[in-house]
Amino acid sequence: MEALVNLLSETLFSNFLTVKSFVSRKFTPRINCNVSIQTRRITVSSCQKTSTPVNRTLTMKNINPQIPVIEYAVRGAVLIRATEIEKELQNGVKKPFTEVIRANLGDCHAMGQIPITFIRQVLALVTYPKLFNEAQFPPDAKERAKQLLDACRGSSVGSYTDSPGIELIRKHVAEYIQKRDGGIPSDWQDIILTSGASPGIKDILKLMIYQSSGLKSGVMTPIPEYPLYAATLTEYDMIPIGYYLDESNNWGLDMSELQTAVNQSRAFSHPRAIVVINPGNPTGQVLTKNNVQEIIKFAYKERLFILADEVYQYNIYDPESQFFSFKKVMKEMGKPYSEMEVASFMSCSKGYMGECGIRAGFVEIINMDPEVKKMLFKAITTSLCPTVLGQVTTDIVVNSPKEGEPSYNQFIQEKTTVLESLRIKAKLISETFNTFKGFSCNPVQGAMYAFPQIKLPPKAIEEAEKQKKHPDVFYAFDLLEHTGICIIPGSGFGQDPGTYHFRTTILMPVDKLKTMLEKFRDFHTRFVEKYS
Amino acid sequence: MEALVNLLSETLFSNFLTVKSFVSRKFTPRINCNVSIQTRRITVSSCQKTSTPVNRTLTMKNINPQIPVIEYAVRGAVLIRATEIEKELQNGVKKPFTEVIRANLGDCHAMGQIPITFIRQVLALVTYPKLFNEAQFPPDAKERAKQLLDACRGSSVGSYTDSPGIELIRKHVAEYIQKRDGGIPSDWQDIILTSGASPGIKDILKLMIYQSSGLKSGVMTPIPEYPLYAATLTEYDMIPIGYYLDESNNWGLDMSELQTAVNQSRAFSHPRAIVVINPGNPTGQVLTKNNVQEIIKFAYKERLFILADEVYQYNIYDPESQFFSFKKVMKEMGKPYSEMEVASFMSCSKGYMGECGIRAGFVEIINMDPEVKKMLFKAITTSLCPTVLGQVTTDIVVNSPKEGEPSYNQFIQEKTTVLESLRIKAKLISETFNTFKGFSCNPVQGAMYAFPQIKLPPKAIEEAEKQKKHPDVFYAFDLLEHTGICIIPGSGFGQDPGTYHFRTTILMPVDKLKTMLEKFRDFHTRFVEKYS
Repeated sequence: MEALVNLLSETLFSNFLTVKSFVSRKFTPRINCNVSIQTRRITVSSCQKTSTPVNRTLTMKNINPQIPVIEYAVRGAVLIRATEIEKELQNGVKKPFTEVIRANLGDCHAMGQIPITFIRQVLALVTYPKLFNEAQFPPDAKERAKQLLDACRGSSVGSYTDSPGIELIRKHVAEYIQKRDGGIPSDWQDIILTSGASPGIKDILKLMIYQSSGLKSGVMTPIPEYPLYAATLTEYDMIPIGYYLDESNNWGLDMSELQTAVNQSRAFSHPRAIVVINPGNPTGQVLTKNNVQEIIKFAYKERLFILADEVYQYNIYDPESQFFSFKKVMKEMGKPYSEMEVASFMSCSKGYMGECGIRAGFVEIINMDPEVKKMLFKAITTSLCPTVLGQVTTDIVVNSPKEGEPSYNQFIQEKTTVLESLRIKAKLISETFNTFKGFSCNPVQGAMYAFPQIKLPPKAIEEAEKQKKHPDVFYAFDLLEHTGICIIPGSGFGQDPGTYHFRTTILMPVDKLKTMLEKFRDFHTRFVEKYS
Repeated sequence: MEALVNLLSETLFSNFLTVKSFVSRKFTPRINCNVSIQTRRITVSSCQKTSTPVNRTLTMKNINPQIPVIEYAVRGAVLIRATEIEKELQNGVKKPFTEVIRANLGDCHAMGQIPITFIRQVLALVTYPKLFNEAQFPPDAKERAKQLLDACRGSSVGSYTDSPGIELIRKHVAEYIQKRDGGIPSDWQDIILTSGASPGIKDILKLMIYQSSGLKSGVMTPIPEYPLYAATLTEYDMIPIGYYLDESNNWGLDMSELQTAVNQSRAFSHPRAIVVINPGNPTGQVLTKNNVQEIIKFAYKERLFILADEVYQYNIYDPESQFFSFKKVMKEMGKPYSEMEVASFMSCSKGYMGECGIRAGFVEIINMDPEVKKMLFKAITTSLCPTVLGQVTTDIVVNSPKEGEPSYNQFIQEKTTVLESLRIKAKLISETFNTFKGFSCNPVQGAMYAFPQIKLPPKAIEEAEKQKKHPDVFYAFDLLEHTGICIIPGSGFGQDPGTYHFRTTILMPVDKLKTMLEKFRDFHTRFVEKYS
């Protein structure tokens, strides 16, 4: 235990891994949740050692105890070092590379993806309406901008909107969903516009903070998972119930694993909800319709609220795969499944648009108890409203130019170019990684990431332990320092103990991706040689 | 007690008032905090009566118990009714008025205020860089836009930024603060850019969620206050410690009142922080330097973290008044005061720019424990980053066109026009209200609101009680139904028990404001006659 505590206090990633693992089955029985909580306390108290002046009012001794234990690997230690290295390069420090390749974050435009012209034209028009006189803007962009400005109070995007967003745009979102799901109705009053998917996810999870008979609410989250869920559950002092995705079955969901996880979790939590990320992040799988049906049946049996993270619904590359929304599948299954509670999240940061910095997205709330829904709508009012320019971006994504409209051809061409390029890179990256010694990478069916498994030489693992780093963190730092390539270690997402992975995006331009892969291969070959 | 419970379950506003009042001294001794908490539980359980299907997973019986008790009056019941009325008018329902006058929210552009050209030009340029070729954009707007795009990854506002915002803009903010405070240094690494002031306020309060010896953290908040604070403290299950502003002394802060409030609060909370809103919302006062010094001394003695809500720092109308930032005053006081912990909040939604819908602002963190600051910076990463277009807006506000630059004259003219108009309206509104029978209104020295006290006839109070409405809520609804004027009842902000107030903005154009005031006078005269 003492060694564990030391390890915890030393590295962010192993901390994250350990806290997660304590509530996951394969590392330690889930029933040991007390240990998890105790571990958290130990982590906090280890932080106290570094606490500073006695005179301060707010110190590590009296801070919110959930904050020190939050970990969010996609903005974690490796990225912090990458930013330092960028500064060193700027300051003329000599490195074996000239730039940092940020393969860590699904940050499309940062990796050279070109913004969709129609989105930016409409944004410019609503922002600065004098541009309505400019001939360079096509009439459909102007028409769209006018419609949106008419929906803003005082015809300005600088006005507050209703907290769930502009009614017109919520209606367009509902129409989009209805069309996407082959005509299954969507009610615009079930739509909440958000500043990216993350605030929507937090708003829904927040509703479930609850304790009875000494047990806190638990939420089933995949391992590996997008770490926003773990971070948010930690912040809210809720219990993550990890369920392992089946790497040997292309990261599919195995029902017996779900069942075991939820059964064991009842000893230390009230399981309330299940998070499913489809297409998967960081794992890139696209669930089959049959798999979605099985999950729905499982959630029904276990009375779980479904959080369907469907932000990559446009990002399907595998010709054999198709996106099935949880809502569509569950509605088609008929009663009782069609009456289940689902929240589905979407974002303008992903897809073909990649407008991360604009902060836009939406959530559809299906079958929520009307009184609970009122509470949700009340709770979001304290954020006033999501950014109006984000709402405008959402409008264009859900209501893109139609055939025959002036901007249609260019829009389709730009959209197709982005998605086709991603398709090529998805294939290239998994195929290339599979030629690396000790790498095995599932096909990237969707989303924006590859999550290969890597076999690390025992001497490398020993060296990592010596340096008090998780082996995959050790590997990621070594890669960064030697090549400038910034990836995220698998322990930041969770993984089967004893296995090592990392996440890389597939976003850089094809040429750059090829160069990166060759640099990566060289590094890996040398790494394996060094520690053999 | 039973009557109280009924009242609680009947109206939102009385609920809000009561929960607040229980922790305020004049209604009931502060030591009765248990009653407050019990009251909350009763409120929750009263909600359970209206709960729906047994089959739902998430119901009022197992929802986060803090959510039902959150109240946020600026988006509360009166506004909801106002929105309904707007729809009724659209659908041709006959009313004694043709439009709803939204005097409820500090929503500048919605009330006709014109956006600042330079802000919108730069926003348009960074959004759609093809506009760099357009002659209609002045060279300084282009130069600024180029500088900002260079600071964005991939030269796109669609990229994520660092979680505290773009370094260049944080540096500009620090320069702005340093200049504002007469040269007192500001470190850009103490600046966090935010999507409006609210998320910054929540981020800081979140750090203080803590319990020891069975006592939760308490935060001193003014009565009347901007209700975001009460709503956030409720959500975080922290204890609001209300301190009354002195209406008879133009809403100044009385040190003996602060002392009494904090002394009594120690029986049921750990007082951790004090919120001061300067210029005041809803009360419009501007604190004197002497008053700020006294508050700092008080906070030092009581070891309180200062949350300085300074979002109206541009909005000073009274020629005798001047804005003194807490940082400037505290730094000038020297040690030990200059070492105190302060977070100061600023927003682009107010001032002369009024860009509410863009969602932009910043917080300066002064003297925070470095370890705690690390935790804060970690915690904000889960929101990824504030909207980049909001960050760009902030940049222009803190680094506006300089004398001699092409856009300077127009910028100054637009800024002056807005602020001068607000100055005229601030005077007009308080002077006019003071001619109404039974109204007394302190001068609006700053911010964007008047908060007059109104004497209500006893029969009106009886009628309100019959309808189970707080008397000022009753009055606000009656005003809305008869005139279309939407104000916020004083009970939504807190007020001395037995007194009645409301908040109105001063934002509508002068002509419209005059018309509103005449309609208001007619209504009030008839209301008083009816209930005499």
